[in-house]
Amino acid sequence: MTGPRYPDLIARLPETVPFVGPEVQERAMGQLFRARLGANESAFGPSPFAIDAMQDAAADVWMYSDPSSFDLKNALSARMGCTPENIVLADGIDGLLGNCVRLLVTEGDAVVTSDGAYPTFNYHVTGFGGTLHKVPYRDDVEDIDALLARAAEVDAKLVYLSNPDNPMGSWHPGARIESALNRLPDGCVLALDEAYIEFAPEGTAPRIDPQDPRVIRFRTFSKGYGMAGARVGYAVGEWNFIKAFDKVRNHFAMSRISQAGVLAALEDDLWLREVVRKTAEARERIATIAGDHGLSTLPSATNFVAVDCGRDGAFARAVLDALITRGVFVRMPGVAPLDRCIRVTAGKPDDLDVLAEVLPEALAAAQGTSEGG
Amino acid sequence: MTGPRYPDLIARLPETVPFVGPEVQERAMGQLFRARLGANESAFGPSPFAIDAMQDAAADVWMYSDPSSFDLKNALSARMGCTPENIVLADGIDGLLGNCVRLLVTEGDAVVTSDGAYPTFNYHVTGFGGTLHKVPYRDDVEDIDALLARAAEVDAKLVYLSNPDNPMGSWHPGARIESALNRLPDGCVLALDEAYIEFAPEGTAPRIDPQDPRVIRFRTFSKGYGMAGARVGYAVGEWNFIKAFDKVRNHFAMSRISQAGVLAALEDDLWLREVVRKTAEARERIATIAGDHGLSTLPSATNFVAVDCGRDGAFARAVLDALITRGVFVRMPGVAPLDRCIRVTAGKPDDLDVLAEVLPEALAAAQGTSEGG
Repeated sequence: MTGPRYPDLIARLPETVPFVGPEVQERAMGQLFRARLGANESAFGPSPFAIDAMQDAAADVWMYSDPSSFDLKNALSARMGCTPENIVLADGIDGLLGNCVRLLVTEGDAVVTSDGAYPTFNYHVTGFGGTLHKVPYRDDVEDIDALLARAAEVDAKLVYLSNPDNPMGSWHPGARIESALNRLPDGCVLALDEAYIEFAPEGTAPRIDPQDPRVIRFRTFSKGYGMAGARVGYAVGEWNFIKAFDKVRNHFAMSRISQAGVLAALEDDLWLREVVRKTAEARERIATIAGDHGLSTLPSATNFVAVDCGRDGAFARAVLDALITRGVFVRMPGVAPLDRCIRVTAGKPDDLDVLAEVLPEALAAAQGTSEGG
Repeated sequence: MTGPRYPDLIARLPETVPFVGPEVQERAMGQLFRARLGANESAFGPSPFAIDAMQDAAADVWMYSDPSSFDLKNALSARMGCTPENIVLADGIDGLLGNCVRLLVTEGDAVVTSDGAYPTFNYHVTGFGGTLHKVPYRDDVEDIDALLARAAEVDAKLVYLSNPDNPMGSWHPGARIESALNRLPDGCVLALDEAYIEFAPEGTAPRIDPQDPRVIRFRTFSKGYGMAGARVGYAVGEWNFIKAFDKVRNHFAMSRISQAGVLAALEDDLWLREVVRKTAEARERIATIAGDHGLSTLPSATNFVAVDCGRDGAFARAVLDALITRGVFVRMPGVAPLDRCIRVTAGKPDDLDVLAEVLPEALAAAQGTSEGG
């Protein structure tokens, strides 16, 4: 009685997952988090109109949703200054990155990213047999010149850049990305992850012709729009490239309720502006809380702040563990020197009160551990 | 200025999609369907408790859902007589089939299915470079002996069987599948699609040890539970095989609202029983309507009925087109001799009133076309 016979690639894949959910940690600890500041969710929530629209749509859930997402693509294309044919929708950027990698990368193909950048992109590249080449951040910013140079050197089919960046919160002006495009090696596509773009200063989004075949940009309703649990993201790219997603995507995968929700959310610019404003306030508050205990923070164009714990990765990890033990869910970058920081989501005032209460204890505990160890 | 460089497999893939959505047809026709009887959705809808739960969950949509789906796996495993580790969840059976194929099939690997069976399974096999081997139905039932013989002949890694069957509505007693398992060639996995199992007679679901590595079974909330638009399906299989899905799946892809909804739906057995009863009545009504116009219907263990149009595929296609033109959304099998039938979903009485009104006109129109052509 034998069972599955896995292809070599599958057999080789690690069983690690990109992220552990906070619920998994809560169950392991036997207690709920007091403040959920680790996944860059927007605790300010979605537009009330989006909530209403989802509640209204619940009774219609017996129907599959429109697999061509006609209404939503029309609404998005009007905002993005492109045609509906430039847009593909999916259950979040994660799924779109997976299909983008699948469309371009086969075993042994080269892909370039920054060391410490989004792990789920790496997960997909590894999952489809690609070879990852990583260049270091430079002064906590993704190093565009190094990314381009490495892409040319290894003949990369795909290069990943997030702008604004996760996990550091740093960003490049859009003009720098526009000029980078012209230096992209032939046959290399730029995957531009703009998950946090709603929080960034004016001019951070590059002006790119949607018909430019050298770039595909990714957007989401999980961050600024406060709808992470709804699972809606989209990608904008050249017609033929976008059409190629139809060869591999799960055509009926979109939740009907989620689509109704994001359509309504798109109409509520006032809500989005308010969320951006409250998020900026929360970032300042995090800087103040950190500063009160002698820690500095990095400038951020996102809904999170990298708090520099001032020592090495082991120390920052001890601070993180101490925060988690005390009920504050946070995450941190995975590689040095970024891992001197912990990453704190710009949450609601109540959540940040908990952070303010717990951080001094966590720092003391980490110092104790560190000095004792 | 070049763009994407596609791997050979991707470049070769057809641009056809498995199904066209009714909304796409509505836009092409410039009118809405009067009766939605083509996608085997349950117009009886989900449990009111599920609707309530989804409405309650809408305000919490700012949070990602638990990527390990702890609560839902516990609830499902209790019902399936297995452990939570035997279960993997995803956005419907389509996505699970895709990942199942990805885990087993690489370029040139053999896969066996029935000619005319679920096109989306074939889409995934082709998409990952597998070679499809098809055996004909036998008397409108999937031919288990022929599937097994072909699997042995081509050294298949995967063989697909839906029970009850889509598109014919036929079924095998569970005991026949239990005995088939023992004749499955070494190293071949049976993908058992039980999307319609809630509608089937007692004894249709085989008794299979969840730790049996030779089979993986697929279930969904899209049919009996009336939640197609929520996108929740699950697969049950041996621990290691299920764990392998973690190597490739999109870990944060589940909608938080949908998970809340199906948890509530699972508690409402009374609703499910009522839906099954109403669906059986609707099947009888479809048989009566068809019989009134000299057409026979096939026995069905699903929420749809294959109506035998009594002539060849071209004629059934003409009937289908005439129904669609008159506002009745239906679909039909893709290959002979199954394509003498059209497939009509067991809808609500109002929907079937429309069918009763329109069918004679559609038949007359098809006869006219057919005789004139």
